Amino acid sequence: MQLGMIGLGRMGNNMAQRLMKHGHECVVHDTRAESMTELERQGAKGTTSLEEFVSMLARPRAVWLMLPAAVVDQVLAKLVPLLDTDDIVIDGGNSYYHDDIRRGGELKSHGIHYVDVGTSGGIFGLERGYCLMIGGEKAVVEHLSPVFAGLAPGKGNVPVTASRPEKTGSTADQGYLHCGPHGAGHFVKMVHNGIEYGLMAAYSEGLNILRNADIGLRPHEADAETTPLQHPEHYQYNFDLPEIAEVWRRGSVISSWLLDLTADALYEDPALASYEGHVSDSGEGRWTVMAAIDEAVPTPVLSAALQERFSSRGNAEFANKILSAMRSEFGGHAEKKPRG
Amino acid sequence: MQLGMIGLGRMGNNMAQRLMKHGHECVVHDTRAESMTELERQGAKGTTSLEEFVSMLARPRAVWLMLPAAVVDQVLAKLVPLLDTDDIVIDGGNSYYHDDIRRGGELKSHGIHYVDVGTSGGIFGLERGYCLMIGGEKAVVEHLSPVFAGLAPGKGNVPVTASRPEKTGSTADQGYLHCGPHGAGHFVKMVHNGIEYGLMAAYSEGLNILRNADIGLRPHEADAETTPLQHPEHYQYNFDLPEIAEVWRRGSVISSWLLDLTADALYEDPALASYEGHVSDSGEGRWTVMAAIDEAVPTPVLSAALQERFSSRGNAEFANKILSAMRSEFGGHAEKKPRG
Amino acid sequence: MQLGMIGLGRMGNNMAQRLMKHGHECVVHDTRAESMTELERQGAKGTTSLEEFVSMLARPRAVWLMLPAAVVDQVLAKLVPLLDTDDIVIDGGNSYYHDDIRRGGELKSHGIHYVDVGTSGGIFGLERGYCLMIGGEKAVVEHLSPVFAGLAPGKGNVPVTASRPEKTGSTADQGYLHCGPHGAGHFVKMVHNGIEYGLMAAYSEGLNILRNADIGLRPHEADAETTPLQHPEHYQYNFDLPEIAEVWRRGSVISSWLLDLTADALYEDPALASYEGHVSDSGEGRWTVMAAIDEAVPTPVLSAALQERFSSRGNAEFANKILSAMRSEFGGHAEKKPRG
Amino acid sequence: MQLGMIGLGRMGNNMAQRLMKHGHECVVHDTRAESMTELERQGAKGTTSLEEFVSMLARPRAVWLMLPAAVVDQVLAKLVPLLDTDDIVIDGGNSYYHDDIRRGGELKSHGIHYVDVGTSGGIFGLERGYCLMIGGEKAVVEHLSPVFAGLAPGKGNVPVTASRPEKTGSTADQGYLHCGPHGAGHFVKMVHNGIEYGLMAAYSEGLNILRNADIGLRPHEADAETTPLQHPEHYQYNFDLPEIAEVWRRGSVISSWLLDLTADALYEDPALASYEGHVSDSGEGRWTVMAAIDEAVPTPVLSAALQERFSSRGNAEFANKILSAMRSEFGGHAEKKPRG
Repeated sequence: MQLGMIGLGRMGNNMAQRLMKHGHECVVHDTRAESMTELERQGAKGTTSLEEFVSMLARPRAVWLMLPAAVVDQVLAKLVPLLDTDDIVIDGGNSYYHDDIRRGGELKSHGIHYVDVGTSGGIFGLERGYCLMIGGEKAVVEHLSPVFAGLAPGKGNVPVTASRPEKTGSTADQGYLHCGPHGAGHFVKMVHNGIEYGLMAAYSEGLNILRNADIGLRPHEADAETTPLQHPEHYQYNFDLPEIAEVWRRGSVISSWLLDLTADALYEDPALASYEGHVSDSGEGRWTVMAAIDEAVPTPVLSAALQERFSSRGNAEFANKILSAMRSEFGGHAEKKPRG
Repeated sequence: MQLGMIGLGRMGNNMAQRLMKHGHECVVHDTRAESMTELERQGAKGTTSLEEFVSMLARPRAVWLMLPAAVVDQVLAKLVPLLDTDDIVIDGGNSYYHDDIRRGGELKSHGIHYVDVGTSGGIFGLERGYCLMIGGEKAVVEHLSPVFAGLAPGKGNVPVTASRPEKTGSTADQGYLHCGPHGAGHFVKMVHNGIEYGLMAAYSEGLNILRNADIGLRPHEADAETTPLQHPEHYQYNFDLPEIAEVWRRGSVISSWLLDLTADALYEDPALASYEGHVSDSGEGRWTVMAAIDEAVPTPVLSAALQERFSSRGNAEFANKILSAMRSEFGGHAEKKPRG
Repeated sequence: MQLGMIGLGRMGNNMAQRLMKHGHECVVHDTRAESMTELERQGAKGTTSLEEFVSMLARPRAVWLMLPAAVVDQVLAKLVPLLDTDDIVIDGGNSYYHDDIRRGGELKSHGIHYVDVGTSGGIFGLERGYCLMIGGEKAVVEHLSPVFAGLAPGKGNVPVTASRPEKTGSTADQGYLHCGPHGAGHFVKMVHNGIEYGLMAAYSEGLNILRNADIGLRPHEADAETTPLQHPEHYQYNFDLPEIAEVWRRGSVISSWLLDLTADALYEDPALASYEGHVSDSGEGRWTVMAAIDEAVPTPVLSAALQERFSSRGNAEFANKILSAMRSEFGGHAEKKPRG
Repeated sequence: MQLGMIGLGRMGNNMAQRLMKHGHECVVHDTRAESMTELERQGAKGTTSLEEFVSMLARPRAVWLMLPAAVVDQVLAKLVPLLDTDDIVIDGGNSYYHDDIRRGGELKSHGIHYVDVGTSGGIFGLERGYCLMIGGEKAVVEHLSPVFAGLAPGKGNVPVTASRPEKTGSTADQGYLHCGPHGAGHFVKMVHNGIEYGLMAAYSEGLNILRNADIGLRPHEADAETTPLQHPEHYQYNFDLPEIAEVWRRGSVISSWLLDLTADALYEDPALASYEGHVSDSGEGRWTVMAAIDEAVPTPVLSAALQERFSSRGNAEFANKILSAMRSEFGGHAEKKPRG
């Protein structure tokens, strides 16, 4: 099947490569010709103008946008006038699902179909395949199924889910799924990322406990500002974190792909000295918590995971200063320096 | 290698079976002869008295306890007088690591070696193998390595961790690991379970958001006690949770063994109508948070996951009544009934 | 000064009374004449039509809306066409500050001034006075200062803040404050309520710990699903909660008006048997957390307090069922019934 | 009444002064004579040896310890052999209630009575009086009531709690209360401090939201690592925090003594530039959360408040580095520097 791809960053580039490996034809667009050289070598048709790009696609056209969420609307403003009735625009980036709902309506008024695709898999997706969560009209999504099947991992060697009916008519076990109408794909991807934050935080907190299990071996201050460690004999362990992450990968309840990655990172740099620990968040975690608030669904874990990231960037500083100021006011407590 | 096993509940029973399948000799003990019939059929030697049990083990004896944490000390009180110098007692249950430290010292004074083993894998361990986290003296742990190797999953088809040095001298990639001195095994297992609580909560909260994404389709009360849903058009989704869990199993960042189980449970009973949602906690999650507090390590996610379980059992009820009482006092707010 | 008041629920009614007691003239409006009888007895001029209401106000008119947030825009749609240039509309209810920003602009295009006032004090405000947080144009706010001074508590017997400069030009020490442009009043009130949720939760959780300090006196189940209480001797207390709340009111660090109310509620009904513990939230707590997320400010306490309310209404139920289902899958754990 | 006081730090010193102002006789002990000069000037009898101290007290002696929790047992080891049957030892410091239970039993075996007193009020207590939470035998506590009445604030000008029965026989409305047997005083004080952490955090988080309400006025980065601020027009406020804290002190739902102190601190140094924001915790907050865990009582707010303090001291750093390492592994995300 033929697909047009706009946005040739790492993700878009890898996805075009994967599609061509699966026999699909890719027309790609970038204003900088040099960014398309490698893709062209692999068989893609490169185009430096949007007009040329559109002209090379057979109708009904399928145009996949793999762009930063902030520029999607700008590109659509230029692209849509060049398209024809029944063409399809797919947003495979990290758009907010509110925008999908709006865009789905706007494009429909031009006779154009809109599909939102939440894409998970990161830089491993080229080899491993991408998990695709899809929102849009049923017939349109089905029309695109060859593209989705090419990008997705397929059944692979993942064990069959015992209780799953053999005939569901669904493609979930191939790694892509039509989740619902406009916005459904990015909604599910948003929650996926919210969960991701929670999983990551769980491993991180647990490993931090293991790392500090030697606290009874360290000198401990004894003053009115420091809580004494009551049983230093319980904290005399020097744990080997990479090995512990590795052993958990086999047979434990907490084995996962994120744990695989964590073990790899810990072997590479056991003290993680190359990191500062200022953790970004790229939107989906925030939107997940906001959706939960709208729904009045409690999310203590997902919220805490999000807020840890805010704290990691120093954003609790003023609140902490207020705590110190209060303690100084009522108790005359002077601040202490943190432990090394 | 010969191993004595005391405690033939589901876990102990399965472990004895797995050991015999791997060619080990098992002497088992239970006061009820009938509970050993099947194991004897598979080759185990059953004993109904502790004396007989001990007498059938070659010195230095290796005795594995697979008992509820609360009865370990009682069994030790009877067992230890029957043992000889250099015999080994292994606690493979869910003991608190404080108890391991104490017991390690007590048994040493009798010339007996103590090994604590945190065991993960649940009812799948019989086939899948058990992840073993081990604490104790180095030479003793090495002596027992055939037993650990038999219980553990082995390398299996888990991908090799890229950054892991080829020669580490460690057994982590076979699913068992000597983590440190007495208590180290159960400490690592305790944190493993703490992480498990966090992971479980992350999936649960996320799926709950998806389930309530239809809130804009439901009738909504409009009174001063109810926050109006500002954008019902954003919550019009009827998501198919089993299919979403299934699609996440392939290629996504959040794929894991717990997700595999969740997909299975959701296909079996999509509304989970067979559950009440009163979630037990069996100790390790509490101890994890207490250890974190001793270490002054922040664990917002692990704590929240633990506390959600307390709440699920109704233990927040009095606190909630106080909130209602305060609201009634200052605002004359009458309570509303919860939504169906 | 003359003020028009629309919305004669408990809050609006009380505020009109307080204003008249302070010598202000009130024109009030309600479509049901009977709801104004008592206010008219106290001197208010009642009007059943908006036209009559507007006609009885001297220009520039000052119209105070004390309405549910959901109906403000509807009333404005009818009211604004009746007003003249330089008239003032004050929204003293619980509007979302986003709406204030929008309305401020809309009314300005009609030459009408808009003022948003966050009002705290609840049913005690009639006697105690209302804490007023005000947003709008400086000159307009100053023009209304007699009204604000009448509603606010004044300096009263609250101790002077030692570090406060004697001459600030501010009215904060009289209980009302111009906080900034449109929306500033409701923004500050929103955060006030967010803090209120946190304070309430802190007292509630603490009192719940005290209430359960008798857990060592209760029978305790001993099975693999229940964590044993390791030291029942530490939990043998039957605390008298009303007396404890009362003693904290004098000299303690946690004395507050909310504690005063809590003590009162506990004396009235120590077991709080008249409450169910289903706690509503009326919007500001949600908006506070959403604003914090937009600002990337960590709010673990305020978020937790909000989510406890969601949980109190049963909204965690499906998430909890997932936890039970997972436990059943990997460990064969059957659910237990919660403690009575 | 005569009281012996050991431990003349700020708290003990102030308490002795307050007792003498109320007509009580104080025998004080310190090994450094110079630390007693001022108290002697005010009428205390200073003693530099424990023997002298004990000899100057009339039987049954009442000895009040105002010492760091860590040294109480050492002092008791020296003091108890000098005491006689029916003498009373009062621990007014911040002991863990577990220690009270143990000490109560130990001293009883010597015929000596033990009383634990949780003392709140900080450096303001000298003038304002101390809130006293008392554990011990009923008759002994009643015997000491003149001392408690002298230290406590008395009824003062705190409003009467409307629902409180006129005749309760309790002293709660005078600011001191016999809460129960050994440990009850420090248990209630422990929970008091746990609540204090929660209240402090609620104000701090809320004020931090207000402080960052200007985020829409600041330059904002636009890259894939930074969540765009969707509505900068909603965050254009420069709030005056001291004035806002001040206005909340009158008539608002969140007025409290802690807010009084916060307003004072903010007027003194609005940017709190003299603080680093490394917040100590002195034990009670930890013990509160641990007690809640033992009781299976959910405390999301109190736990979060405790953990914010841990984070403020940099203790989340390793966990945050793991998050960055994971993000680098799966997404190739490079870390960003935190905002200024």
